[in-house]
Amino acid sequence: MAHKIANLLNIAEWKLTPYQVLVLSFAGLILVGTLLLMTPLASVTGEGLSFVDALFTATSAVCVTGLTVVNIGTYFSLFGQLVLISLVQVGGLGIMAMTTLMAILIGKRINLKERLLMQEALNQLTVAGVVRLTQYIIKVTLLIEFIGGTFLAIRLYSDLGLKGIYFGYWHAVSSFCNAGFDLFGSITGNFSSAIGYAEDIVVNLIITFLIILGGIGFTVIADVWTNRRFSKFSLHTKVVLFTTLVLIVLGALVIFLLEYDNHGTMANLSWNGKVMASYFQSVTARSAGWNTVDMSNLTDATLFFMIILMFIGASPASTGGGIKTSTACVLVAATWALIRGRSDVELFGRRIPYGIVYKALAVMLISALAVIFVTMMLTITENQEFIRLLFEVISAFSTTGLTTGITTTLTTSGKLWLVFTMFAGRVGPVTLALALALKARKGNLQYPEGKVIIG
Amino acid sequence: MAHKIANLLNIAEWKLTPYQVLVLSFAGLILVGTLLLMTPLASVTGEGLSFVDALFTATSAVCVTGLTVVNIGTYFSLFGQLVLISLVQVGGLGIMAMTTLMAILIGKRINLKERLLMQEALNQLTVAGVVRLTQYIIKVTLLIEFIGGTFLAIRLYSDLGLKGIYFGYWHAVSSFCNAGFDLFGSITGNFSSAIGYAEDIVVNLIITFLIILGGIGFTVIADVWTNRRFSKFSLHTKVVLFTTLVLIVLGALVIFLLEYDNHGTMANLSWNGKVMASYFQSVTARSAGWNTVDMSNLTDATLFFMIILMFIGASPASTGGGIKTSTACVLVAATWALIRGRSDVELFGRRIPYGIVYKALAVMLISALAVIFVTMMLTITENQEFIRLLFEVISAFSTTGLTTGITTTLTTSGKLWLVFTMFAGRVGPVTLALALALKARKGNLQYPEGKVIIG
Ligand SMILES: [K+]
Ligand SMILES: [K+]
Repeated sequence: MAHKIANLLNIAEWKLTPYQVLVLSFAGLILVGTLLLMTPLASVTGEGLSFVDALFTATSAVCVTGLTVVNIGTYFSLFGQLVLISLVQVGGLGIMAMTTLMAILIGKRINLKERLLMQEALNQLTVAGVVRLTQYIIKVTLLIEFIGGTFLAIRLYSDLGLKGIYFGYWHAVSSFCNAGFDLFGSITGNFSSAIGYAEDIVVNLIITFLIILGGIGFTVIADVWTNRRFSKFSLHTKVVLFTTLVLIVLGALVIFLLEYDNHGTMANLSWNGKVMASYFQSVTARSAGWNTVDMSNLTDATLFFMIILMFIGASPASTGGGIKTSTACVLVAATWALIRGRSDVELFGRRIPYGIVYKALAVMLISALAVIFVTMMLTITENQEFIRLLFEVISAFSTTGLTTGITTTLTTSGKLWLVFTMFAGRVGPVTLALALALKARKGNLQYPEGKVIIG
Repeated sequence: MAHKIANLLNIAEWKLTPYQVLVLSFAGLILVGTLLLMTPLASVTGEGLSFVDALFTATSAVCVTGLTVVNIGTYFSLFGQLVLISLVQVGGLGIMAMTTLMAILIGKRINLKERLLMQEALNQLTVAGVVRLTQYIIKVTLLIEFIGGTFLAIRLYSDLGLKGIYFGYWHAVSSFCNAGFDLFGSITGNFSSAIGYAEDIVVNLIITFLIILGGIGFTVIADVWTNRRFSKFSLHTKVVLFTTLVLIVLGALVIFLLEYDNHGTMANLSWNGKVMASYFQSVTARSAGWNTVDMSNLTDATLFFMIILMFIGASPASTGGGIKTSTACVLVAATWALIRGRSDVELFGRRIPYGIVYKALAVMLISALAVIFVTMMLTITENQEFIRLLFEVISAFSTTGLTTGITTTLTTSGKLWLVFTMFAGRVGPVTLALALALKARKGNLQYPEGKVIIG
């Protein structure tokens, strides 16, 4: 009981910071996954994947992105599929547990004015406390996946027999982890995702329910489960629930308006099907990466709109990626406050400290710069339309995994850039947010104020 | 002497706020310009422009954008050309005088904590003071344009004879006002801009010198002229000079690397010509809009990079547009401060107040939202590559006027969207910045702090 979490992770001995641990454990997991996916055992044909393709697939799985260079459902053997979903489960759980732990620690006392070294904060938690939290997260995750998977298995059993049961649980894990991998390629054609189920309300609701739960963040789930009433929720929970709802509804509305008469996507669906597909794409664009319409036929306007949804992504301490709903909400609130001439940024009757607004600004700006840089690199190496490259890069960075279909056509350097982007997009904003809370220095001299003209 | 500026602008009688005055005077000027350009007198053929095309051209001129649906040099008569350059001169001077006045007023005492109504601030300046300032700005502008124009006239006289003298002064005005209109279409082919002078070091230096002076802002020119030494400059001047230099050098380097072997643009130029063209495009991308290479042949990577340069734009209180160099610098400094774990944003030994960082955030975010919205609209109405539409919209919004060549092919609704964008991009960030300083309300109750998880 007297042991410290620092010892548990061997941080003290290795002299590693918590985020170095995060980065190294993800990198190690990707390496193991790459080797497993390269074995002949992993594929139906018995030919192993090339190193680059295996690396790409393993990174995509561990980072729960969902971009693929081969068609999962037909290329991989049962063993390969199980390796893949295991990587997804460990990657998804890992990021959720780590970020939840960090969120609790940061929330506890670190703010910009009085910063503590993470080390000290970690020392306050006992091994038992951390183990209990992690166990709790694992239990909740498995429970949700089991319930969702069972419903999905019952639904798919009627279509696919015993295979439907396997599909049910497999896709429940993929959905809750916001991974977006699917096996439907073996049923409805290569890279078809859930297009065959565009009008199936049961499948739509189960999958989006799992996606939303997985993407909303563990702290929010725990808060809602414990307190039940909106007025009792923490500010963070209120912000995340509100922003998620607004983005889902607004996203569905815009996608509907842009696509309802597009013959490549929704024109042939029923009225209900159009509404459902719009809702489905709105939910999955923010990090899950499933699709029930043909992404390669979307209009440029929709692609551009989904690029923004993907960039925003899911919520903190979840399996989803992007700059996060709370980040976007704080930025909009700060802008709105200024327009209204207020010096304080307010949300739900609470004032947001300057440090948090700055942090949101930094996460957004650094993410934008990363995405811009990689997109420029891809415009040099790849011979594809700009918007499809931008879409692919932001999809990789936000670990969404949606694609207009160009993933398989990428050059080796293009694939490696995306491997880097998926990894950076997964651990980047998290470690960035952590690093920003870690540094303890407070300038001992304060400069006099100076003014600059803006705009 | 006892009269107040408020009376001068009739604000008191009309009950108009200063930014309503700005918007209305620009709109009025555009209307006059539209009517003049519609007259048969304005064109060589004697056929007047259609209303939409005249509106587009007049807006482009008054907002010193430089996008055109007809070729200026061959379509317009001498009268038409003089109307156009007059609109540019009045538009450029108008925005510079207005923004300088605002900058002085805002700099004087308005900060986020203690806000005054603009009205009060205006009342502190006497009519005489404002008239003197405006006269000073006009004198400096005309002097710079005269000197630059004379040099240019001497250079062009050797090529074009008497016409070269007219061209010299005409293009000096167009350059200093960061308008980017040119008459070279009549010499080197339609929409050729300065491509014929890509290797001409004299023309390159004169034009970029005028562009930089016009885009750096009147307060900076006055500061440099008065104080001469960097250490004596105001913080704002230091920030603007530093950011401008970094952007010009970095921009030239990136453009060179991306284009030196592109056979559609620079491959056929000499080594010096490549360096000069890279420098020229780097300077003009931030709001001037001239080009010495064929924009339609640039690689997607360069287009994307120039989109970012255009979005940043020139400096405050200048003839240029965009979110402004100082805005970009403050945002980067805020991010950098956070990464280094500092709670204060510092630049050149001065602390940037929270209010200014927020303002920079708001200007950037609102500009991005405006550009995203219009681009989405254009992807619906126009049948063009996405990156060319994005380029065109950001070019219009930042009043740069560079184009990949699609301006003439736009639909009427596309043209009208761009008219709106040019206008919004010209008066938007300025009035926004002013509006943000105008509102005086300070919440009389302060909410307790609340935390949100970011990233
Ligand atoms: K995903
Ligand atoms: K311009």
